Amino acid sequence: MSRPLEGLQVVECASFVAGPTGGMTLAQLGAGVIRVDPIGGNTDHRRWPVVGNGTGPADAESYYWASLNKGKRSVTVDMRSDEGRELVAALITAPGTDRGVLVDNVVGRRWMANDVLVARRPDLIHVRVQGYPDGRPAVDYTVNAEVGIPQITGSEEGGAPVNHVLPAWDLVTGLSVSTGVLAALYDRARSGRGAYVELALADVALAGVANLGWLSEAAERGRERPRHGNHVYGSFGVDFACSDGARVMVVALTEGQWAALRKVTGTEEVFAALEQALDADLTKESERYRLRETIAAVLKPWFAARDLKTVSDELDAARVLWGRYQGMTEVVAAHREGRHPVLADLTLPDGTASITARSPLRWGGEHGPAGEAPVLGRDTDEVLAEVLGLGAAEIGGLHDRGVVG
Amino acid sequence: MSRPLEGLQVVECASFVAGPTGGMTLAQLGAGVIRVDPIGGNTDHRRWPVVGNGTGPADAESYYWASLNKGKRSVTVDMRSDEGRELVAALITAPGTDRGVLVDNVVGRRWMANDVLVARRPDLIHVRVQGYPDGRPAVDYTVNAEVGIPQITGSEEGGAPVNHVLPAWDLVTGLSVSTGVLAALYDRARSGRGAYVELALADVALAGVANLGWLSEAAERGRERPRHGNHVYGSFGVDFACSDGARVMVVALTEGQWAALRKVTGTEEVFAALEQALDADLTKESERYRLRETIAAVLKPWFAARDLKTVSDELDAARVLWGRYQGMTEVVAAHREGRHPVLADLTLPDGTASITARSPLRWGGEHGPAGEAPVLGRDTDEVLAEVLGLGAAEIGGLHDRGVVG
Repeated sequence: MSRPLEGLQVVECASFVAGPTGGMTLAQLGAGVIRVDPIGGNTDHRRWPVVGNGTGPADAESYYWASLNKGKRSVTVDMRSDEGRELVAALITAPGTDRGVLVDNVVGRRWMANDVLVARRPDLIHVRVQGYPDGRPAVDYTVNAEVGIPQITGSEEGGAPVNHVLPAWDLVTGLSVSTGVLAALYDRARSGRGAYVELALADVALAGVANLGWLSEAAERGRERPRHGNHVYGSFGVDFACSDGARVMVVALTEGQWAALRKVTGTEEVFAALEQALDADLTKESERYRLRETIAAVLKPWFAARDLKTVSDELDAARVLWGRYQGMTEVVAAHREGRHPVLADLTLPDGTASITARSPLRWGGEHGPAGEAPVLGRDTDEVLAEVLGLGAAEIGGLHDRGVVG
Repeated sequence: MSRPLEGLQVVECASFVAGPTGGMTLAQLGAGVIRVDPIGGNTDHRRWPVVGNGTGPADAESYYWASLNKGKRSVTVDMRSDEGRELVAALITAPGTDRGVLVDNVVGRRWMANDVLVARRPDLIHVRVQGYPDGRPAVDYTVNAEVGIPQITGSEEGGAPVNHVLPAWDLVTGLSVSTGVLAALYDRARSGRGAYVELALADVALAGVANLGWLSEAAERGRERPRHGNHVYGSFGVDFACSDGARVMVVALTEGQWAALRKVTGTEEVFAALEQALDADLTKESERYRLRETIAAVLKPWFAARDLKTVSDELDAARVLWGRYQGMTEVVAAHREGRHPVLADLTLPDGTASITARSPLRWGGEHGPAGEAPVLGRDTDEVLAEVLGLGAAEIGGLHDRGVVG
């Protein structure tokens, strides 16, 4: 099966999560992505998690780097040398309708500034990931603090902020990169125009909370939203413990979901009486939100009296919207049983077996291949020959002079 | 300034966060997006946050709906009627190279099944957001529980899971939708092929944790990662309290960031002695991670002895990577001072002033317009005339029969 972006070539000079996620997404849709790194690897090359969980050698393979850069070709160049810089600039601006696309997160390299590159290829598509819009560095954990999420997470009112562990803004930024590249290609195919598209992690986070209406809420309220613990904001949804200690997350956003939940738990009459006593209409989402603690207290004994298997069977039969709290080891076990087609096995260069993912986008029902683990610098010669037309003697000379890895 | 997707027309039959975020992203890049809803609105039409914070009327405007659907045209149709269904199918499959693009999150409407629509327009691009890949419903909070994030959030080892408040997977899915639409357009322009692209929220979450290497780590470790509180996994980064109670998040991923942090806090000799005593090399990220509690304890008094202003000035001058914990009311105040160009004011249909965002993608330095707040059903007549070529009498008849809103 052919993939939608076959033929497209992208150069990626980026590190950590956001830029590489953008490149990986394009690679999984069929684009040829060339990741360019300094000889010896960029600062993300050995990032955790690593093989051996810190007990292995200092150069233990990184599950993270392999997974975020799978399906790409790896080129290493000494970018402190003029000759190396010229090679990288030539790769970025090589002619061809399906070339001339760069994703980077570079700060302060004058030779990679957009105007310098555009002088070589006027229709270049250049998507640059930044921390702040002015180029200062920022990471997921700092921008998340700045937009106020950790302060409304957890249940301890007035307590210390609770950081998220998922680098959510990095992932959103990564998919914004792939969106930006493809939107620019749409335009270039029609107008011939290139594009310089900048994208700051801090702006992605600001836009994320603003788009959900949360800044409007804060502006109206004049103070922070109280912490809700595990309750879903603006609706009914919370976790319950089963008799065997397993926990489930149960949500009733719609009237139908709320009806199913009342019915299966045999609480229809309780809630009818409560509605009368409290002059409330729990078929309305905002009322379920207002009375969330009361609803949870009424439902809690039903879960506490049943083990996970019983809860699971009954909720599914009643079409309640729910999910089980699982550990990642349980996700791994489900993968081993073949229950998650989106997951895939990935062999690292040192032979270690690991787990990665295919594209969650199913094209005609297929996730497509996940892509192979990259080997740092392995594809340097192949790419120089293919894209720049260099011969064996020229490439040999570059190796001898230490310009490429 | 022209925007990259100008000319493109997309029909959106989706609700809540993921699908509408995809459509909004395309609209902000210049596409014409037509959101189709049932008469009276979909289940997300009054979602929180709402004007009045629950103290207003039952039909209070939703900051959430307005913000996630800004810049789109709104069409309302009675989709229980055959005539209404025919209208919607005709809108989706209307001829034109820059038409024939559908984003939906529909479950079980046979008349909107992909094969039915493709019979009318073979090159249709149809991106369908799902809960699970088999079509069963799931929401951000249930899939997040299932991939194991809440179990490694917070600091209380063995305690109850801590849900995130940001619907992170919804946002990632939304940007995956825009990526999928544009990749399919890239392919259609070359091959003439349409595409049926399915995308399950559950798969986006599984892929997210797998791509970071976290499932590989769990597989190797054989048990869950311990909770780290506010520490950054695999590196050094944690929050500190200043003397005035303000908190900052400080991160040292790279050797340069670590050197800057030691220098500004005057702890170079302390850490040199510690490295000797503990036989550690803190220039290595994995060593900073292993000794994160010790490092934090050494640095803590420096922050505790200074107020935020002093900490801020000194960290900035030293080029430390850090961010301040702010409340959303502080973000709002900064917006009022014009300090966040990505944010924009949005007037709701009832006249309420609210805050939303422009695209975080800056095209030639510009975020572009945020887009106007939608008014439910306002654009029905205009769209029917423009896309389907219906005349005033025909549209009047549809209104009379209650087929359109």
